[in-house]
Amino acid sequence: MKGEDSFRELLGVQVVEVKDGYAKMSLKITKQHTNFVGVTHGGVIFSLADCAFAEAANSGDKVAVAVQVSINFLKPTLEGDTLTAEAVKVSEGKTFGLYSITVRKEDKTVAVFTGLSYKQSKS
Amino acid sequence: MKGEDSFRELLGVQVVEVKDGYAKMSLKITKQHTNFVGVTHGGVIFSLADCAFAEAANSGDKVAVAVQVSINFLKPTLEGDTLTAEAVKVSEGKTFGLYSITVRKEDKTVAVFTGLSYKQSKS
Amino acid sequence: MKGEDSFRELLGVQVVEVKDGYAKMSLKITKQHTNFVGVTHGGVIFSLADCAFAEAANSGDKVAVAVQVSINFLKPTLEGDTLTAEAVKVSEGKTFGLYSITVRKEDKTVAVFTGLSYKQSKS
Amino acid sequence: MKGEDSFRELLGVQVVEVKDGYAKMSLKITKQHTNFVGVTHGGVIFSLADCAFAEAANSGDKVAVAVQVSINFLKPTLEGDTLTAEAVKVSEGKTFGLYSITVRKEDKTVAVFTGLSYKQSKS
Repeated sequence: MKGEDSFRELLGVQVVEVKDGYAKMSLKITKQHTNFVGVTHGGVIFSLADCAFAEAANSGDKVAVAVQVSINFLKPTLEGDTLTAEAVKVSEGKTFGLYSITVRKEDKTVAVFTGLSYKQSKS
Repeated sequence: MKGEDSFRELLGVQVVEVKDGYAKMSLKITKQHTNFVGVTHGGVIFSLADCAFAEAANSGDKVAVAVQVSINFLKPTLEGDTLTAEAVKVSEGKTFGLYSITVRKEDKTVAVFTGLSYKQSKS
Repeated sequence: MKGEDSFRELLGVQVVEVKDGYAKMSLKITKQHTNFVGVTHGGVIFSLADCAFAEAANSGDKVAVAVQVSINFLKPTLEGDTLTAEAVKVSEGKTFGLYSITVRKEDKTVAVFTGLSYKQSKS
Repeated sequence: MKGEDSFRELLGVQVVEVKDGYAKMSLKITKQHTNFVGVTHGGVIFSLADCAFAEAANSGDKVAVAVQVSINFLKPTLEGDTLTAEAVKVSEGKTFGLYSITVRKEDKTVAVFTGLSYKQSKS
């Protein structure tokens, strides 16, 4: 990706690895990532996974946009935890790409995100 | 809700209205909410909707947690846009609640979020 | 729609009403629609909703195909119940359509289905 | 599972393998499984995957019910194709189970189904 990703920087997401159809990111959870009950905000988990999805789906030269995402939240996480999001390609055609992103705290899966991307034709 | 929601404050989400099973929030999109192609980050749209979902689903005395969300992204938005998220109750039982959250820019729907919440028994 | 829908006939789905961007179908649940615990099979509920989705999304002259669906099952139903599925358009652009389908037993919502359709260009 | 699954029999779904947290089913697509454009009905694909999900999620002694499913349709299939659905456990706790079901035609993935199950306490 060429441009900076301002929101990714605001969150503090770190890029661990990016290659064709694959991306891994990490985020250390701080107080500012938590919600009113003191656990990591669902929006933070989603955003971390979405950053990995965007990199994996855009590793070619076309711009792919997210059209639909389903996310399952499995376990709460806390301030001080380090989370990783690993995006892998499930399927990719000319028009659509399907990616599965797993969010983990160490080896425990805390959320599963399935994202559908759409590649707009250049015109 | 009793505690502060740190992530909601970091984002700058404003509460417009909260009542039983309903919540409306707004967010003015700034540069820090954008992604590498210059549009609002999917994580910001999700997070805004998730804040409205959390308030609507927690308007009683039980704590409800999000277990699954499906989101459709319909139109891109930009820095300077003001977005609203309106959460309405679709169904609510003893155990599960289903909420539909519509994210709009003025009167245009830009995303639709369907969230399933689970109410844990006190013990 | 021009062709016959063989699976819809196998299920016994009845068309109640179809108009632009809208469809309503009904199905009387029989023994053959039930699963191993004696309630209506999830696949039957989905299929009924999918029939309404297909009619609503194909009311124009383009062929729209389903690319993604999220369904929430709220209440079980039984042999002898009559279910309706009502599909309404949430959003429709040149490429994508988003439809919300509500499955009811009388006035009770038993499932909510959100379907994304994609219109292929003629070529 | 003890009881017969009437709808599974109506469809003609065959059980290939069932073990703890895992199930594989197959279905030969016939004319009666097709829709008005002559491809396999989305409800048939969903139902085949749902049968595998139900077996995998119910391999213990508790009864698990589906509360939410997200399905992505990747490729159309036709009369005469033989499809398989393979359900694997992603996560399982005391209350919720998350299963991923892949529907294939030979070695090609034609649909991906993610199902959330809820185990009701006996009382």
